Amino acid sequence: MTVAVVPGSFDPPTLGHVDVISRAVEVFDRVLIAVVANPSKTPLFSSAERIEMLTDICADWPNAEVDAFDGLLVEFARDRGAVVIVKGLRAVADFEYELQMAQMNQHLSGVQTVFLPTSPEHAYLSSSLVKEVARFGSSLEGLVPPVVATALKERFQ
Amino acid sequence: MTVAVVPGSFDPPTLGHVDVISRAVEVFDRVLIAVVANPSKTPLFSSAERIEMLTDICADWPNAEVDAFDGLLVEFARDRGAVVIVKGLRAVADFEYELQMAQMNQHLSGVQTVFLPTSPEHAYLSSSLVKEVARFGSSLEGLVPPVVATALKERFQ
Amino acid sequence: MTVAVVPGSFDPPTLGHVDVISRAVEVFDRVLIAVVANPSKTPLFSSAERIEMLTDICADWPNAEVDAFDGLLVEFARDRGAVVIVKGLRAVADFEYELQMAQMNQHLSGVQTVFLPTSPEHAYLSSSLVKEVARFGSSLEGLVPPVVATALKERFQ
Amino acid sequence: MTVAVVPGSFDPPTLGHVDVISRAVEVFDRVLIAVVANPSKTPLFSSAERIEMLTDICADWPNAEVDAFDGLLVEFARDRGAVVIVKGLRAVADFEYELQMAQMNQHLSGVQTVFLPTSPEHAYLSSSLVKEVARFGSSLEGLVPPVVATALKERFQ
Amino acid sequence: MTVAVVPGSFDPPTLGHVDVISRAVEVFDRVLIAVVANPSKTPLFSSAERIEMLTDICADWPNAEVDAFDGLLVEFARDRGAVVIVKGLRAVADFEYELQMAQMNQHLSGVQTVFLPTSPEHAYLSSSLVKEVARFGSSLEGLVPPVVATALKERFQ
Amino acid sequence: MTVAVVPGSFDPPTLGHVDVISRAVEVFDRVLIAVVANPSKTPLFSSAERIEMLTDICADWPNAEVDAFDGLLVEFARDRGAVVIVKGLRAVADFEYELQMAQMNQHLSGVQTVFLPTSPEHAYLSSSLVKEVARFGSSLEGLVPPVVATALKERFQ
Repeated sequence: MTVAVVPGSFDPPTLGHVDVISRAVEVFDRVLIAVVANPSKTPLFSSAERIEMLTDICADWPNAEVDAFDGLLVEFARDRGAVVIVKGLRAVADFEYELQMAQMNQHLSGVQTVFLPTSPEHAYLSSSLVKEVARFGSSLEGLVPPVVATALKERFQ
Repeated sequence: MTVAVVPGSFDPPTLGHVDVISRAVEVFDRVLIAVVANPSKTPLFSSAERIEMLTDICADWPNAEVDAFDGLLVEFARDRGAVVIVKGLRAVADFEYELQMAQMNQHLSGVQTVFLPTSPEHAYLSSSLVKEVARFGSSLEGLVPPVVATALKERFQ
Repeated sequence: MTVAVVPGSFDPPTLGHVDVISRAVEVFDRVLIAVVANPSKTPLFSSAERIEMLTDICADWPNAEVDAFDGLLVEFARDRGAVVIVKGLRAVADFEYELQMAQMNQHLSGVQTVFLPTSPEHAYLSSSLVKEVARFGSSLEGLVPPVVATALKERFQ
Repeated sequence: MTVAVVPGSFDPPTLGHVDVISRAVEVFDRVLIAVVANPSKTPLFSSAERIEMLTDICADWPNAEVDAFDGLLVEFARDRGAVVIVKGLRAVADFEYELQMAQMNQHLSGVQTVFLPTSPEHAYLSSSLVKEVARFGSSLEGLVPPVVATALKERFQ
Repeated sequence: MTVAVVPGSFDPPTLGHVDVISRAVEVFDRVLIAVVANPSKTPLFSSAERIEMLTDICADWPNAEVDAFDGLLVEFARDRGAVVIVKGLRAVADFEYELQMAQMNQHLSGVQTVFLPTSPEHAYLSSSLVKEVARFGSSLEGLVPPVVATALKERFQ
Repeated sequence: MTVAVVPGSFDPPTLGHVDVISRAVEVFDRVLIAVVANPSKTPLFSSAERIEMLTDICADWPNAEVDAFDGLLVEFARDRGAVVIVKGLRAVADFEYELQMAQMNQHLSGVQTVFLPTSPEHAYLSSSLVKEVARFGSSLEGLVPPVVATALKERFQ
């Protein structure tokens, strides 16, 4: 049984994240969504809030599970029996940084990384752009799942 | 059971190809190495020769199998029950072209593509560079598996 | 009145080309679609056939016109009173080559180039990929306009 | 009449910005230079100072106008009747980020973005590099217009 | 006699930096390693500590010398009689930024920049990744020289 | 004494090539311009003609020498006592391919590669673009040295 980890800040989850998770649950036996509990920038949503949104989003995928972690990703992956890290790729700039991280993680632990390309219609989505759109009160249609749209509207009221 | 296809011209297979296949057999239940029978440029080795070299290379991986195909890759993948195409990524230029192909293949068939980064020490390997090195009689040490080195030396004698 | 030239081989026109033309006719007063009569690779469709398909595609845009040219693009542009060349951009690799051409064209003639990004859902379309899909008899839905789909099917029967 | 918006922090304007504006006023009927009033990093010059410098720089272009804005760029553009956003492109890294913004802005509002390549001799100019050069008292010759050179020298005395 | 400057924050030096310095001492008559005394982010190690580590690392190269600088790099280079700046290149993203800096430095002073590619096995190393690995107590084997590993362990105890 | 090799097809030499050579002769003790005698595409100018043009161009640099070679570049470099290969870099696409070649050459022979960025005003020059301009009879001013302009005009009469 292949266990895969999908790490991220998910602050908040976008339809781009949902797209990557929906691909991962199709390809791997078990998918562990790993929320970075304390990202380097202060998050808009607490780790508990981000876990709750992701749990809601993944409700229909029985082989997906959501959890938070602190410290090195590869140690979390090994503790949970995961042999592969899954990252979405949107653009060339993503690729270079992610390649560097993948090679470092392989060096540190032997855990592999696989990259899943996002659908073209989600290529321009990022959590920070979505927060900026919400901050100015624009429509979040087509950018985030309903549960996240509601949370963003409450936060920026 | 997840079946993955690893397509390529493999004219000839390099240690970079071996690296990608060795990663795929670890992550997927069954791995089908799919040799492009008639690539756009006239190959140095016939499709039978390329299949034989790959079969030799994959001898120790019980979940790997080698076959040739003609026509659209996604139709071959569907015929064989594969849900995922696996491509190695060495560099940014690779990534852009492969992303375009992945999105086209998803559009045509719904078959997904996952990308596996090659080990840094294989990042500069390509079949065409290897053929040029062999043509001028330089050492193939660290570039191709022994069975390929032997075949290249015979070809360029 | 700003006259813009949209050059290309259009062998054949894809929905990506249509997307770029539809943006250009919105932004510029008059848009001249300039078909490269004799591209470096032998085209699948004659320049007359490509002009006919584009004329059909542009029928509803009164400020669009289709013509073929030979020789240097900047001379064609100056002859027709165009002050700007319009190029669609899909990817980073496109950008570098197009930037080089834009700087050369500015050096030769003072004619500027503006770049229009394609819609994300057309980012993976290219004339050569579309021809390969048609060659193997796959569906052209979502890749080319109906008039081009018909022409491709006839050509590859 | 095509109205175009050229947005930026312009903290301070460089000869690269001037190059892009000089191209835009040639191609579009009316050009609105839109100063980001409150950029994410604290600016060196107030928005009033940046507007004053740009107004001085644009004095000879009758179809250029300078204004500041807060909030989402696309709402400013729509309020002013602009159908197109103009961005200068210097390098590949610029392109990827700008493509993402262009696609988000199109999604939010239907306002298009066109990219103008900067002249090669301005490709290495950025406001932050220019400020660093001024901070250490080096010559600003060939980097910024005279009005900006004067302002920078006063600021770093 | 060609004097070359190898500038950097070196906070701390990695095996990637050592690789670049080892190439520079082979190609140039005299190599001056120039430590940025006050980088924009607060460094983990003081400039004295970084100079000490680099001096230890360079002990066997008689034509290498270590020093710190403040202000513009090109003025330091000219003061020391250096005609060339040496930068290591790991990835495309590095290249674009470094190209911009090289062109600015040439504009300001006429001092040239040459780029040395890092060995593929060091392509994923960066000072910030190394600090993160050390912070979480993972092995630093294959990432930094022994003197740096010792200093990092002491710092993060 | 550091001997450097500047390899290329030089079919024909452009002002971009001259720029790179002029930088190399400043940095290295002796510079060997190495003309690829039989490039993969049939050249416009014979290797004797290309050597003659380059010899004319380098007449004022006493430490430059021109020669042709066949076979592997690294063997030519070693035969001539060169420890370093010099390549000009114009763009990101160049960089990726050149990095791959540099790593292969280091693997095969230990000979290092250094990259020199071209001046921004030469970034769009390439031998193939220059030939296309000449073919259509446009001005070669600012693209090639006078000796090459004369040769191109004769060839395309």
